[in-house]
Amino acid sequence: MTSSHKPADRLPGLQDLLAARKRISRWAHLTPVATCEGIDRMSGARLFFKCENLQKVGAFKFRGASNVVLSLGDDEASRGVATHSSGNHAGALALAARLRGIEAHVVMPSNSSAPKMAAVRGYGAKIIECEPTLDSREETLNRVVEQTGAIFVHPYDDYGIIAGQATAAMELLDQVADLDAIITPVGGGGLLSGTALAVNHILPETRVIAGEPRGADDACRSLREGRIIPSVDPQTIADGLLTSLGERNFSIIQENVERIITIGESEIVHAMRIVWERMKMIIEPSSAVALAVVLENPELFSGQRVGIIISGGNVDLDRLPW
Amino acid sequence: MTSSHKPADRLPGLQDLLAARKRISRWAHLTPVATCEGIDRMSGARLFFKCENLQKVGAFKFRGASNVVLSLGDDEASRGVATHSSGNHAGALALAARLRGIEAHVVMPSNSSAPKMAAVRGYGAKIIECEPTLDSREETLNRVVEQTGAIFVHPYDDYGIIAGQATAAMELLDQVADLDAIITPVGGGGLLSGTALAVNHILPETRVIAGEPRGADDACRSLREGRIIPSVDPQTIADGLLTSLGERNFSIIQENVERIITIGESEIVHAMRIVWERMKMIIEPSSAVALAVVLENPELFSGQRVGIIISGGNVDLDRLPW
Repeated sequence: MTSSHKPADRLPGLQDLLAARKRISRWAHLTPVATCEGIDRMSGARLFFKCENLQKVGAFKFRGASNVVLSLGDDEASRGVATHSSGNHAGALALAARLRGIEAHVVMPSNSSAPKMAAVRGYGAKIIECEPTLDSREETLNRVVEQTGAIFVHPYDDYGIIAGQATAAMELLDQVADLDAIITPVGGGGLLSGTALAVNHILPETRVIAGEPRGADDACRSLREGRIIPSVDPQTIADGLLTSLGERNFSIIQENVERIITIGESEIVHAMRIVWERMKMIIEPSSAVALAVVLENPELFSGQRVGIIISGGNVDLDRLPW
Repeated sequence: MTSSHKPADRLPGLQDLLAARKRISRWAHLTPVATCEGIDRMSGARLFFKCENLQKVGAFKFRGASNVVLSLGDDEASRGVATHSSGNHAGALALAARLRGIEAHVVMPSNSSAPKMAAVRGYGAKIIECEPTLDSREETLNRVVEQTGAIFVHPYDDYGIIAGQATAAMELLDQVADLDAIITPVGGGGLLSGTALAVNHILPETRVIAGEPRGADDACRSLREGRIIPSVDPQTIADGLLTSLGERNFSIIQENVERIITIGESEIVHAMRIVWERMKMIIEPSSAVALAVVLENPELFSGQRVGIIISGGNVDLDRLPW
């Protein structure tokens, strides 16, 4: 794989997280925290939803991308940035690049949906299509980086990205006092590791727990076995949670995450629909996984104050799961 | 028709509106105001969305119902309340009654959808089914009122209801400075007349404009002809806007509303989808009518600060219009 962008390739400390928060405040929304009495009654807990679906690009990914793009020196930045992604990271990096006035090159599999390609193009990125294989993605990305000199920004296995994603939990801990636990979904581990770092530095007694689709449970098994187990042929509606854990993410998760709880597909859809109906808020299936952790395991959270990071709200409205 | 509840059957003045606002603050949410840069760019205006879809019961209707139920003396209240409605007013009155600890009787046509009946029942109301004709609704309601002594609360043609609905615009005028215009949808006229009264008392230079489905344009024609023209066989997806104007509502609207602009069905669906996609917020078709007014008539609002009252977010997720 081509060498990743590494302006500061070391575990972010509290100062790094505080710097990231200050840095991204220039572009990112300080998203609201929503509550819902009806869902509190269902769950037996007091839930605080950190609404990253209302973040720019409709996902927390804009935080990490902004942090990295704003951290680049002018010389570095002038080379542009590149990534491969068919999801929210692509749009996030594209928008951050546009705001900085630099180019973004996004390698996308040729079978990506037309709306996804249109969204990334809409944020001003150049799309380079590749075959829908990992080999082709990496090869194509390497070629783009060689030809353009652009800086590769990994979607999650990058300390700058992790520090950016940490800012969602940092805000949440400011907005809501005395949280007993924070729950995030886990895919590559960017949001989870950032959240774990933030909590560890700011309110370490708060438990950090993740939800993962049962049909894509590589992170749960990785944590149990103490090594990264790749995600092979994952099957879930939560299309933001298909990837394998990153190395940097995994080592943070091992140190700071209490447990990863797996969730079945029908429970994901159920939790998603509850939020749509009760909170009038559009969340994507990946986000619903975190709420499902509480609804399916009420005994773990009974009477507690629980933060839930709603990771995003990008859903194809023509293909809803009900 | 049975005699309506009339604790104060006179046009509400500023003191009445202020009292209503104070009264309902005990139960109703002070709803947030949302903005969206993307939709601002599309419209050429600066839009402020007053989120009554995040109100209790998912609609502004809870304001009016709360105001009336909280205005009842203890003796009156002990008789319970009654209404006929297949929509948001039924749920709103049911919840307000439950919060006061009194009975609510709701007459609903037997062909109402199962989810609607379940929702009203879920708020604790007694449902009395009738034939799906206006005659049967009124007869059944009269019988219920005679048998129970319950106080009839009209969905919109009631000054207590109007004062309650006015509180949404009152809050909006506090939350956002210097609005050039406020747009609401219009059905029976409860929200529109309340908004017009609030603006007239608080910031009279602000223009009040309404949106109405072209397939249910009785309010537009009524305003033009200077008399209430009944809504006959309305055809629109905006199922909250089917009814005829109330007398009290019409006289307020005649005095204080600049114009009513009609909107086609595809424009309603388009505006609804834009809010879902861009704002990650669920709004019902009736609410989308107000946004469509701006999107379809940009020349009327170019560069202006425009408040849009999102009337509600109750949508059947199994029957979306796309």
